[in-house]
Amino acid sequence: MSITSSAAWQALQTHAEQVKQTHIKDMFAQQPARFSELSFQTEHLLLDLSKQRFQLTTVDLLVRLATAQQLPTKIQAMFDGAILNPSENRPALHSALRQPRDKSLALGDTDVIADVHHSLDAMEQLVKRIHRRQWRGYDGSPIQNVVNIGVGGSDLGPLMCCKALSEWVPEEARQLNIHFVSSMDGSQLERLLHQLDPASTLFIISSKSFSTIDTLANAKTAREWLINASGAPAEIINQHHFIGVTSKAEKAASWGIPLANQLHFWDWTGGRYSLWSVIGFPIALHIGMENFHRLLAGAHQMDEHFRTTELSDNLPVLLALTDIWNINFLDIHAHAILPYDGRLSHLPAYLEQLEMESNGKNVSLDGQVTDYRTCPILWGEIGSNAQHAFYQLLHQGTEAVMCDFIVPAQRYQHASTELQQQHQLALANCLAQSRLLALGDSILDAAEQAPAHKRYQGNQPSSTIMLKSLNPETLGELIALYEHKVFVQSVIWNINPFDQWGVELGKVIATELLSQFDDDDTSALDSSTAGLIDFIQSNTGTRHTNDG
Amino acid sequence: MSITSSAAWQALQTHAEQVKQTHIKDMFAQQPARFSELSFQTEHLLLDLSKQRFQLTTVDLLVRLATAQQLPTKIQAMFDGAILNPSENRPALHSALRQPRDKSLALGDTDVIADVHHSLDAMEQLVKRIHRRQWRGYDGSPIQNVVNIGVGGSDLGPLMCCKALSEWVPEEARQLNIHFVSSMDGSQLERLLHQLDPASTLFIISSKSFSTIDTLANAKTAREWLINASGAPAEIINQHHFIGVTSKAEKAASWGIPLANQLHFWDWTGGRYSLWSVIGFPIALHIGMENFHRLLAGAHQMDEHFRTTELSDNLPVLLALTDIWNINFLDIHAHAILPYDGRLSHLPAYLEQLEMESNGKNVSLDGQVTDYRTCPILWGEIGSNAQHAFYQLLHQGTEAVMCDFIVPAQRYQHASTELQQQHQLALANCLAQSRLLALGDSILDAAEQAPAHKRYQGNQPSSTIMLKSLNPETLGELIALYEHKVFVQSVIWNINPFDQWGVELGKVIATELLSQFDDDDTSALDSSTAGLIDFIQSNTGTRHTNDG
Repeated sequence: MSITSSAAWQALQTHAEQVKQTHIKDMFAQQPARFSELSFQTEHLLLDLSKQRFQLTTVDLLVRLATAQQLPTKIQAMFDGAILNPSENRPALHSALRQPRDKSLALGDTDVIADVHHSLDAMEQLVKRIHRRQWRGYDGSPIQNVVNIGVGGSDLGPLMCCKALSEWVPEEARQLNIHFVSSMDGSQLERLLHQLDPASTLFIISSKSFSTIDTLANAKTAREWLINASGAPAEIINQHHFIGVTSKAEKAASWGIPLANQLHFWDWTGGRYSLWSVIGFPIALHIGMENFHRLLAGAHQMDEHFRTTELSDNLPVLLALTDIWNINFLDIHAHAILPYDGRLSHLPAYLEQLEMESNGKNVSLDGQVTDYRTCPILWGEIGSNAQHAFYQLLHQGTEAVMCDFIVPAQRYQHASTELQQQHQLALANCLAQSRLLALGDSILDAAEQAPAHKRYQGNQPSSTIMLKSLNPETLGELIALYEHKVFVQSVIWNINPFDQWGVELGKVIATELLSQFDDDDTSALDSSTAGLIDFIQSNTGTRHTNDG
Repeated sequence: MSITSSAAWQALQTHAEQVKQTHIKDMFAQQPARFSELSFQTEHLLLDLSKQRFQLTTVDLLVRLATAQQLPTKIQAMFDGAILNPSENRPALHSALRQPRDKSLALGDTDVIADVHHSLDAMEQLVKRIHRRQWRGYDGSPIQNVVNIGVGGSDLGPLMCCKALSEWVPEEARQLNIHFVSSMDGSQLERLLHQLDPASTLFIISSKSFSTIDTLANAKTAREWLINASGAPAEIINQHHFIGVTSKAEKAASWGIPLANQLHFWDWTGGRYSLWSVIGFPIALHIGMENFHRLLAGAHQMDEHFRTTELSDNLPVLLALTDIWNINFLDIHAHAILPYDGRLSHLPAYLEQLEMESNGKNVSLDGQVTDYRTCPILWGEIGSNAQHAFYQLLHQGTEAVMCDFIVPAQRYQHASTELQQQHQLALANCLAQSRLLALGDSILDAAEQAPAHKRYQGNQPSSTIMLKSLNPETLGELIALYEHKVFVQSVIWNINPFDQWGVELGKVIATELLSQFDDDDTSALDSSTAGLIDFIQSNTGTRHTNDG
């Protein structure tokens, strides 16, 4: 039976018909304590849901839906290491990656937590060696530049965290530059190679399967560059300039990376949930192990909150249910992620993967095509920049959009007055935009006298997540909040958020097509693909004549 | 009368009911010459619309709709300088910015084209002075770092073009680094100021109105930094370290920028259409004036194509009508921009502004609230990276999404074999993904035997824009293609694409709120805004006690 025919779902549907009649501005007017009744806190952050298009009753009904979907049992099952990813027959144990050393969790014969800390310890050794300038290039130069080659989960999480936490670089890491290379066409790498000194450059090859073609193509280009520049044999280059981060030790070894240069993680760590593992190596190199442990500790705090708090006060649960309401009952197709802090510039791209790859599914765990919508389009930008880009559409367009505003209360305590004022400006804009989106121009006197093109209808729902400040702990907490939100949504939608079968077939077809680029006979292909290959051949001088 | 009651619209609606029954794979099967019938070329690029969910009849009906909306007249009116932006009483003359020097266009008493070239000549003088190391900092150092401070149209276009064309940096510009600072919170600037040498750093303050608070806040922080670092008086700093790019000379002068340090443009250049004007100064500094003129020439070629080609062969028109079909007749809410070339990494953000700020409108030129949808959500990413991020949703999610695939046929002609192979890989992936999105797993044998979670339904429409190669001309052509597409859509929707009233009110509210941050009494505000201000005050030690 689809969830849409459950009593809990139908109650929400009936309720939605009534709520849709009420503008958010009227909800504020009718409920004087709306903020205190619809905002929630942990020690380090506040979640304000009062600008959503719902009422207290809505939240009750949503919690009932979650209960009917056995959410508490599922949450416990996740932490216990149950097989929540049946299509790959795996648990999803990213929460184990941030458990303290004194805990344990049995998975078959192994203690997962012991393995995790063993792996973190190995990473710490490498971090220290590099920070102490004891890792040397082929000519004895200490490493000055580290290039992380990875894509998707092996790129977005480390990149986002490095950008967010660049103020937490300890003394010993200051001489080190961290770069990120991800695109398969080699653009970022090619640009970098013009600037870097081969002898003092170290590459991290980060791929769970160690078969990601994007990453291996970049790795190959990097190795050829090193071999050509150094004149050294490949073994020396592999040994001094490559570290592999993977769950497939043999594959990395057969590519050429010695076991001693490898960091390992496990198949139960999903790529998009892996920054907490050794995939976070670039983060640890950038901010040091102590700060990396603070990042883990922040996430663990959110884990504990999520695991132990009543649904009706549980932040990831409430954030998830809010989205369910917007998507399935208010028919909203888009979700904007709007950090008012330039350090979080890569958070939207990170969350795009986390949410759309996890929950962009149309088949339920029972193998049925869903008769309800799941993940919407997520996108975003630094909020103040987006004000000058796409807020026009949020305020006066024809699309209903839900927004997440994310901002720290405190910043620049030891910086100049000018920068402190810039943060105040960012805060004021953040609050002004969510206010205007919710209430529309009703906050102005005589707004209705303005011409139609100057009116603001409001009634666009948003959540505000305000951190006390942005630091390794609160970033960890924030990311874990979204991770668990995504999980809760998947439980309501009865889908598997931990697999990604929708990315497999493209790889197969691409490999097939690549072999046809030099082919004369593309007649087995659709006319578009054949026509495009013909255009490529004509413009690269690779087209064979018919009688050639 | 709304366009939805027109005969042309209704014919499309009836037609859509029938087309919706047919999967794209069946359209290919039924129409052997589909690619040649639905792909279109200019000298430098190919537009393939054959993977859209439509038929030849659809295109005919769409062209009839465009004709009914008097598109040809409107196109001519745009080039002639008619007032197409009535809410601001202005023409929209970005096409004039790329007219050759020997043309003329009267606007009142002035020749716009003469003005344009006068302004470009002034820019050229500055570019040469800086390239020849004749512009000096306060202590006589030649300029090595240029920081563009601007946001929205004063940031996204120059940033996108600089990234796209970094292979076209001429010898004399190689010693110059160009940086971009946009976010009002100062994040990017603060990070940069730690790295830059004040004496050899030049700031471009880029703001059409010279009242953009984001830009002025960053400019102030930059000037304080220079004054503190140099000990020089403000006039010396203004004179040696600031160039203003604006349409408001007096405002820039009263901020402190001498007239001799200013470049000017006009109120008829919309911010998001301004990279062709002196707003493109950072581009000209990066790639040199000769290449900048090639960029303009490419755009001009597209202008001429757009102005003179029949609707049914006109690329911007066809691209626009395709979107209209998807949005208004197939009910698609989202549009993904997917360049398979890392050099185009900033194109999605650029187009997000271009499209959503232009057409994110719900009020027609007649002042009526539209009864049809206008601009959808645009977002994107380097395509190959997005494969590892959100393609899961494109292939197996519940959202219908239209995609633009953008890729050059030729690349890396003088680079290593490894990089050439990387481009082939990117091409193969680009073609594979559009093929799979359109046709689904029907291209595989026995796909229907796979379990439901491994199935690919296909039928997601896409366009492919293939450039012969990426260079200043083709980039100019590509951007102008999108600019005109946006205009054509606005004509069909009967909205003004050149104003942006939806961004005004937020500025007012933000200024009001800023003054309340130190206030005890927030009772006039909604409870959410008051509660958030209270949280800020509590966490920054700025909360006053009740009896304080």
